[in-house]
Amino acid sequence: MTEQSPEGLILLSHGSGGVSSHALVERLVGHISNRTLSRLDDSAVLEANGRIAFTTDGYTVDPLFFPGGDIGRLAVCGTVNDLAMVGAQPIALSLAFIVEEGTQAKVLDDVMSSIRDTCMLAGVDVVTGDTKVVNRGKADRLFVTTAGIGMIPDRVDISGHNARPGDVVIVSGPIGDHGVAIMGAREGLSFTSAIKSDCAPLNSLVARMLAAAPRAVRALRDPTRGGLATALNELAGQSALEIAVDEAAVPVRGDVRSACEMLGLDPYYVANEGKLVAIVDPAFSNTVLDAMHGHPLGREAAIVGEAMKGMPGRVVVRTRMGPSRLLVMLTGELLPRIC
Amino acid sequence: MTEQSPEGLILLSHGSGGVSSHALVERLVGHISNRTLSRLDDSAVLEANGRIAFTTDGYTVDPLFFPGGDIGRLAVCGTVNDLAMVGAQPIALSLAFIVEEGTQAKVLDDVMSSIRDTCMLAGVDVVTGDTKVVNRGKADRLFVTTAGIGMIPDRVDISGHNARPGDVVIVSGPIGDHGVAIMGAREGLSFTSAIKSDCAPLNSLVARMLAAAPRAVRALRDPTRGGLATALNELAGQSALEIAVDEAAVPVRGDVRSACEMLGLDPYYVANEGKLVAIVDPAFSNTVLDAMHGHPLGREAAIVGEAMKGMPGRVVVRTRMGPSRLLVMLTGELLPRIC
Repeated sequence: MTEQSPEGLILLSHGSGGVSSHALVERLVGHISNRTLSRLDDSAVLEANGRIAFTTDGYTVDPLFFPGGDIGRLAVCGTVNDLAMVGAQPIALSLAFIVEEGTQAKVLDDVMSSIRDTCMLAGVDVVTGDTKVVNRGKADRLFVTTAGIGMIPDRVDISGHNARPGDVVIVSGPIGDHGVAIMGAREGLSFTSAIKSDCAPLNSLVARMLAAAPRAVRALRDPTRGGLATALNELAGQSALEIAVDEAAVPVRGDVRSACEMLGLDPYYVANEGKLVAIVDPAFSNTVLDAMHGHPLGREAAIVGEAMKGMPGRVVVRTRMGPSRLLVMLTGELLPRIC
Repeated sequence: MTEQSPEGLILLSHGSGGVSSHALVERLVGHISNRTLSRLDDSAVLEANGRIAFTTDGYTVDPLFFPGGDIGRLAVCGTVNDLAMVGAQPIALSLAFIVEEGTQAKVLDDVMSSIRDTCMLAGVDVVTGDTKVVNRGKADRLFVTTAGIGMIPDRVDISGHNARPGDVVIVSGPIGDHGVAIMGAREGLSFTSAIKSDCAPLNSLVARMLAAAPRAVRALRDPTRGGLATALNELAGQSALEIAVDEAAVPVRGDVRSACEMLGLDPYYVANEGKLVAIVDPAFSNTVLDAMHGHPLGREAAIVGEAMKGMPGRVVVRTRMGPSRLLVMLTGELLPRIC
């Protein structure tokens, strides 16, 4: 950066659109350069033929770096996963930074480096981007907004509206890791120090599920903010079905369960960033489950419940002993700036 | 919003992903509802066949509402215009809000209403979105990030890299309005009170230019942050050509020129949000110019200069009297948070 301050801090001039902006963009793009991005026209140009998926998410996670990830990895995974939740494989991401004046340039470098690694993992490129700088005290170091485009294979039709009575509910692995890792990092808790965010791109797991049984996967959702409880409520609402979950079947790591107990959290409401809920045709549920077990991110996948006519939009949990309980959508705020 | 505070303020719980978030999303989506957006899956699903354009921009403009526009209109226009600058017609936008806790919900309603109007003007839908809430003092009311997808017609090949020696440089209308309007609004200046931002979607103007001479338009750029000077420097650099501009030919409104003189600004560096620079095959420059004159946003379009071999990357201004002067890229910061 030609106008970088001696201390390596981002200045307002880095958001001017002029010489300093160009130098900063060159520095950031250097981490993730590819042929499309390097053209630096006002838009990237791509080829697309067929059904495409399009999604966006803003990231304001605090802290920016946490066990198992950082805001860059989170942003790439979050957008790749939203594409994967309609069965799409990512073809291109956009990346917009809003940076607080005075942020260390090294923070941006570290985030870009993580974005590069996560893009490689997911097999996608950032092809277009933007950087704005706001005055000190008008943002919190760095906010990231990503959007993504993916291609949906033929024969795939996945939507929260598509679940049918009798369908099986699968969770891809243990829940609650991300939220507990963030809370632990923010509060400096010692008893969560071994817990890492599960932040990971799910597109290759979804590709494997769809290869095994392309038409059997009816609905997918990644249980991020609001946790598994909120994702299931959304799916039950969109499909106008009741969903029943067997409490004993829902995987939760021992240390996450203990941490949740100490913190007074219900793991059903804690955010995940590398898990999915699948609603699957019961005739193919074992085929799909076997496919998931063969992927590193689905090794602990489990059938946790079923969809039924029942009362549309309701989610119940069958406890090991005693009566079922209602699992409502998250109310209030569990943990601000979880993602 | 079910959990809206009595004063109609946005709370952290509106960013939780749970019940309040869903209520807020429903309220915001209500302003711009369309069939794709209303499905509320993790990604929107669209059809695309051929070359698509993809772009993103973050908006942090201060103030949120200004003469001639607001952050919502600016975001839609900015993204539509970036698509138009590679010749694409917009097919879908994404919209991500980062909201400061304590912001009035009515502010979001007003911005959404402006987004709806501007989308109608540009002929595009918002098909996917996201809302995050950060603690009071960690953002400045509202930041907006949009991304967009457009389709590029056959036979169109527009890039900053495509200008050739002898090409003609056209500007679509008077420059500097947006920057002066923002500065005036922010500082409460009386002598700028009649000056409005030029913020407008340029896609229909570009469509008209391409209909008149699809292959003649070599490069387009909207001179936003950094102004006309920076846009011309970018184009000269990308195409490795020199660009010469005739000072007398560059349109600037009288009141904008006066305001710039009083403020010590050079209009060449002041941001525009509804103007474009076109680099055009000289054999078709009058065809393109006539087409522009027939469109409300191109009525004052003018040929302002030419591209030549000269010194690659250099931009010079030929003054009415006296020698040419070098027009370098913006250095330093003219006006933070102009867009």
